[in-house]
Amino acid sequence: MSRTTNQTRGRYTQPVPTSNLEDYEGDFPEFEPFEDEPGSEAAPRSYPPAGGLIVEHIDMCKEMNGPKHYTTSYDNPNLVVRRGLDFTIRLTLNRPLTEHDDFQLEFLIGSNPSANKGSLVVVPFGPREGGPWLGQILDVQGQVVVLSITPAPNCIVGKFRMYVAFAVGGGMERSKRDAATDVYVLFNAWCPEDTVFLPNEAERMEYVLNDVGVIFNGSVGAVASRNWVYGQFEKGVLDACIHLLDVCHMPIDDRGDVLKLVRMGSAVINSNDDNGVLEGNWSEDYSMGTSPTAWTGSVSILLQYVNSNSPVRYGQCWVFAGVFNTFLRCLGIPSRVISNFNSAHDNTGDLKTELIFKPDGSMDRRASRDSVWNFHSWNEVCTTRPDLPPGLGGWQVVDATPQETSDGNFRCGPASVAAIKEGLLCHPFDARFVFAEVNSDMICLKKDKYGILSPYRVDKTYIGQFICTQAVGSMTYVDVTHTYKHPEGSAADNSTMARAEEYGCERDHSRVVEAQVSADIRAEQCHLGDDVNLVVTFHNRGEDSRIVKAHLEGSVVFYTGVTASHFKNQDFTVEVPPQQKTSVTIKVAAQDYMPHLQSQLSLSFVLTGKSANQSLSAIKVVSLLTPPLSVMVSGYPRVQQQMFVTISFTNPFTFPLYNVYLFCEGAGLMSLKNHFYSVIGPNATVSWQEMFAPRLKGSRRITALLDCNELRQVQGHVDVVISD
Amino acid sequence: MSRTTNQTRGRYTQPVPTSNLEDYEGDFPEFEPFEDEPGSEAAPRSYPPAGGLIVEHIDMCKEMNGPKHYTTSYDNPNLVVRRGLDFTIRLTLNRPLTEHDDFQLEFLIGSNPSANKGSLVVVPFGPREGGPWLGQILDVQGQVVVLSITPAPNCIVGKFRMYVAFAVGGGMERSKRDAATDVYVLFNAWCPEDTVFLPNEAERMEYVLNDVGVIFNGSVGAVASRNWVYGQFEKGVLDACIHLLDVCHMPIDDRGDVLKLVRMGSAVINSNDDNGVLEGNWSEDYSMGTSPTAWTGSVSILLQYVNSNSPVRYGQCWVFAGVFNTFLRCLGIPSRVISNFNSAHDNTGDLKTELIFKPDGSMDRRASRDSVWNFHSWNEVCTTRPDLPPGLGGWQVVDATPQETSDGNFRCGPASVAAIKEGLLCHPFDARFVFAEVNSDMICLKKDKYGILSPYRVDKTYIGQFICTQAVGSMTYVDVTHTYKHPEGSAADNSTMARAEEYGCERDHSRVVEAQVSADIRAEQCHLGDDVNLVVTFHNRGEDSRIVKAHLEGSVVFYTGVTASHFKNQDFTVEVPPQQKTSVTIKVAAQDYMPHLQSQLSLSFVLTGKSANQSLSAIKVVSLLTPPLSVMVSGYPRVQQQMFVTISFTNPFTFPLYNVYLFCEGAGLMSLKNHFYSVIGPNATVSWQEMFAPRLKGSRRITALLDCNELRQVQGHVDVVISD
Repeated sequence: MSRTTNQTRGRYTQPVPTSNLEDYEGDFPEFEPFEDEPGSEAAPRSYPPAGGLIVEHIDMCKEMNGPKHYTTSYDNPNLVVRRGLDFTIRLTLNRPLTEHDDFQLEFLIGSNPSANKGSLVVVPFGPREGGPWLGQILDVQGQVVVLSITPAPNCIVGKFRMYVAFAVGGGMERSKRDAATDVYVLFNAWCPEDTVFLPNEAERMEYVLNDVGVIFNGSVGAVASRNWVYGQFEKGVLDACIHLLDVCHMPIDDRGDVLKLVRMGSAVINSNDDNGVLEGNWSEDYSMGTSPTAWTGSVSILLQYVNSNSPVRYGQCWVFAGVFNTFLRCLGIPSRVISNFNSAHDNTGDLKTELIFKPDGSMDRRASRDSVWNFHSWNEVCTTRPDLPPGLGGWQVVDATPQETSDGNFRCGPASVAAIKEGLLCHPFDARFVFAEVNSDMICLKKDKYGILSPYRVDKTYIGQFICTQAVGSMTYVDVTHTYKHPEGSAADNSTMARAEEYGCERDHSRVVEAQVSADIRAEQCHLGDDVNLVVTFHNRGEDSRIVKAHLEGSVVFYTGVTASHFKNQDFTVEVPPQQKTSVTIKVAAQDYMPHLQSQLSLSFVLTGKSANQSLSAIKVVSLLTPPLSVMVSGYPRVQQQMFVTISFTNPFTFPLYNVYLFCEGAGLMSLKNHFYSVIGPNATVSWQEMFAPRLKGSRRITALLDCNELRQVQGHVDVVISD
Repeated sequence: MSRTTNQTRGRYTQPVPTSNLEDYEGDFPEFEPFEDEPGSEAAPRSYPPAGGLIVEHIDMCKEMNGPKHYTTSYDNPNLVVRRGLDFTIRLTLNRPLTEHDDFQLEFLIGSNPSANKGSLVVVPFGPREGGPWLGQILDVQGQVVVLSITPAPNCIVGKFRMYVAFAVGGGMERSKRDAATDVYVLFNAWCPEDTVFLPNEAERMEYVLNDVGVIFNGSVGAVASRNWVYGQFEKGVLDACIHLLDVCHMPIDDRGDVLKLVRMGSAVINSNDDNGVLEGNWSEDYSMGTSPTAWTGSVSILLQYVNSNSPVRYGQCWVFAGVFNTFLRCLGIPSRVISNFNSAHDNTGDLKTELIFKPDGSMDRRASRDSVWNFHSWNEVCTTRPDLPPGLGGWQVVDATPQETSDGNFRCGPASVAAIKEGLLCHPFDARFVFAEVNSDMICLKKDKYGILSPYRVDKTYIGQFICTQAVGSMTYVDVTHTYKHPEGSAADNSTMARAEEYGCERDHSRVVEAQVSADIRAEQCHLGDDVNLVVTFHNRGEDSRIVKAHLEGSVVFYTGVTASHFKNQDFTVEVPPQQKTSVTIKVAAQDYMPHLQSQLSLSFVLTGKSANQSLSAIKVVSLLTPPLSVMVSGYPRVQQQMFVTISFTNPFTFPLYNVYLFCEGAGLMSLKNHFYSVIGPNATVSWQEMFAPRLKGSRRITALLDCNELRQVQGHVDVVISD
């Protein structure tokens, strides 16, 4: 995008307009004479004749339009409407309107607006035929004229400039540019003609209008969650979202197309390629920015990005997904955050996630290039797919987390969830990549001493074991695995997998002789600082008693499955009687893993073993729970009334915590605040109070977070109902 | 791509290997002890036992492998082979081989090579089972062992490092790293198991092995051509092509996948986003680099890019297509350059190319955002499409010209030509964009005085009127329009268009009353500096005589259809009798257009008119022919024999030409040479002779070019047959 305009002078008839928020003075001359038609009498070219109409005042009727368009919550001085639905404006003129008056409204977006591209829309109210937006005079009372305007349900989304123009003698006389009459036009999930139409009101309330939520994390069997303030209505956020489209030079003309817009969004939320919003960092060093675990929501990220004009540090998958969700809901697109547990990554587009073990039974971390993330979060948007065969509309996967290995694309989707379920990987965009994330087989390979690999175990159910999102109208999760996958092993599942192979996905078909002894690891949920008790159960399906020589490795892992540090190696031998199960309990003391944790909360245990020359293996991820943060509110819960929030924390450890930050934030209640403690001693309690005045009514949540180098991901919240 | 490794430490188990050409010393220790297996007796760990085999010499057998693999032409010291076909190497050992010797070859590519990703390939020759590459001992004569190796037909493409390893007692003993035994493995159009298999030998000779060609340009009815030296075998070009994949950080593991590779190639040939090879420039100012018209071929561009490590200035579509073709053929992918005449651009993915006319009949160049390129060049590659339903393999469109408006993607394709013909736009990649380039309707709209548009003429045949490429074994063109489109108006064409609409392409369905009088413009081919005679014919289909008030505009246009400068306006009136044609001849004098040409050679004439309140219009592009450049060779045409080329030019104009460059180049004959003249006077003749010594035998071409600010695109060539 670095080329000068000059270098493309012969390439475009006009520069491609890609900026919405840039201000345009002087779209038109205030008086524009009509151009002559050949063969017609030349029109008189005098300056506007006397008696011309003048607009004395324009009322954008926010109080009337806001509730009807569900846009009252936007903390924005301008009118915000949704396309495909009429809105009202009231003109006060210098004299009553007569039936001879011929006038029109003109809506413009971007530079060089063009009528055939939908970036210049003329809405006539006289006897002339109109364009794609309907205009109607609702009422005339003296000098006051009430107009209704209905933007087309497929019109460009963004901030339009509005002019009133009167036909006077030889030309058009226009109102002056007035930024106060700019109108934001959004996608409309309430409009059946809009591609993002959602018929269910509860779903619209959740997926378009809910400005807080939870994002699920943890691990299979120990699903946890994190509060996230989407905050799509907060001050500056709508402009920030439009700014993002300007940053990535998205042509204005394309901004009514939800598919192009969300694809562009998935690219600009990460900073790769385009200097977008968030820089990814998967390490333990966040000293150059904010730890991904220390964000409470999207608002401060988006505002920081706009103000600094450089990528915000740092994000990991849930941060990318949280900010992307804000962007989508803010522009009116129904969206939600999905978490996929045991998510396959870094594959080359095939359906094999391969873990390689050395001859001595330990995992070969150098050779094992694939990884399984404990969880991965992405987004879904709901839209029709006019570009695809019928049946593939509805929820579509979009993912803003930069996937270095996905063919150099730092964007992903929209990929139809229905297409993924059926293995229809022949359609855009990136369905194959998402399919592999939820459907790969996990294959354990042993490497012989010459370096040659052979598979000894194939687990077809480990990957994509559980997929969930936040339920409608509740902060709990709802299982959506069935929308991505037929039941494992069902006939429908088999035909999906067969279809994926027809479309070129490679699977493993090596015949692996099932070992007669299998292993399984279980653990109770436990808190950070507790000892972990692992129960390893061996099951001998054979007719003879077996001796198992087993090796257990314990590591602290990133949520991406990558080893952060290795803290335990244990060899043991067990005899398993025929047709029986034998369990061994292994205690992992807190002092063994605590020094290795840093900001991670996941322990991974890999068991490998040999029995009568057969190999076996088992994997268990244990997610540790963090201590609680207490959040309480006091005061009368009413809009604009003074209230207080109190956040308390007790250090449960026998060691002090240094350089501790507390954060709290509530969409519609209070913007992000923080408080710093240089030290919180062992077992010491701290308490912090902040004042706030609610901006919006309804059921609202305040989210709080504690962050320091020794302890991250400590959170709490309180719900409060605010009345008018 | 700017993130440090540290920031992704917890993201990847190993850094994603994306560099092929970086040199790796010490892949392995020279002696690597076997790792113990649990339960097995510990192997003795002494340093290699006495009597171990040593490789004294490795002969890569280039003379034998080259002709068999069609790679003799590569000017490269290393062996170059095509995958899926066996090649031979000869090992000389320190003693004769015995039946107890256990040895293997190891082929490695990129950093952290991994056996399960195909970047570390073990080929055993002992009793052990092998991997995906076949190994066979062909012959043993004393200390000399002749081996045959067959790379898998889907293996990674690039430069492999090779080691010989012997199993000795407690470990593997390896040969030292030797860059002379590195092997380049390419795609193989001769191998039925390769995705790029092409069954026809003449086609393989053309589309893989031909290193010169012509690229068609000009305009419909006046198709011209430009010589292009692809030069894929020239010194440094193969490494340059692999370097490109390294530049765009393409994962090594993906480099056997032709679809991913060509998509990546379409991105890296242009400099947008990724600092790739060529910077586009569509202007008249090329002072900061080389004019797009002054290149004779790809070789100097690729070498300049590699040496400077920054984008080469400047390209336009045929330069992007020419360099891309070199890249593709060099890596063994069958490819060709396509030219589409009247190519629609800058649409928003719909099928409407809209030209807007003002009330006075002149074209509204500010409002007409769409453009029709006189021609546009892209590439096709031939491959199966395992990712798509059956029937969509074969030729695939890939386009490296940066299309600013294509959704922010500076890459395009591969899009199946068969899918485009059938309107199956629901498949990746970018089929919709290419479909619009060849199938848009051209719509003339008139803008009324209020700014409201209405269509008055729809031309469904103007766009994509003619699509051609170079014929197999000849420098003439072959019409491939039928591979993209069913005959206009046929039933099959109608169903293709209907299918495209089902997949969301918008077409114009406004009912346009056909004007009773239509117009058409014709012109003879003419040379630069000649007067142009336009014949405008009006056809009155009505029952009454008609008076037409016509307006003719003449402009110099870029090949993109964008107006460079406007030189003529003429109004005239014609009476056309009922049911008759009336022609008017309009002479455009050379002195009218010559001062406006700069480096362009296309004149565009737009006629608009009115008759009985109906509008009519016609468009004609006239491409001017340049004066010839004479090229002759002398000397005995034999490999390595001294020969001479003489290039002569006579300035046909009455004005002098200043700062004139002559260029000449011949693939396999001579690298690019140039010669400078500060002035060539009116009607003066210059002559330049260069010596050369042919490198390759066969039928070969020397291409010459003249370039100066006043005159571009002057070319000549000579063909010569070189014997051994």
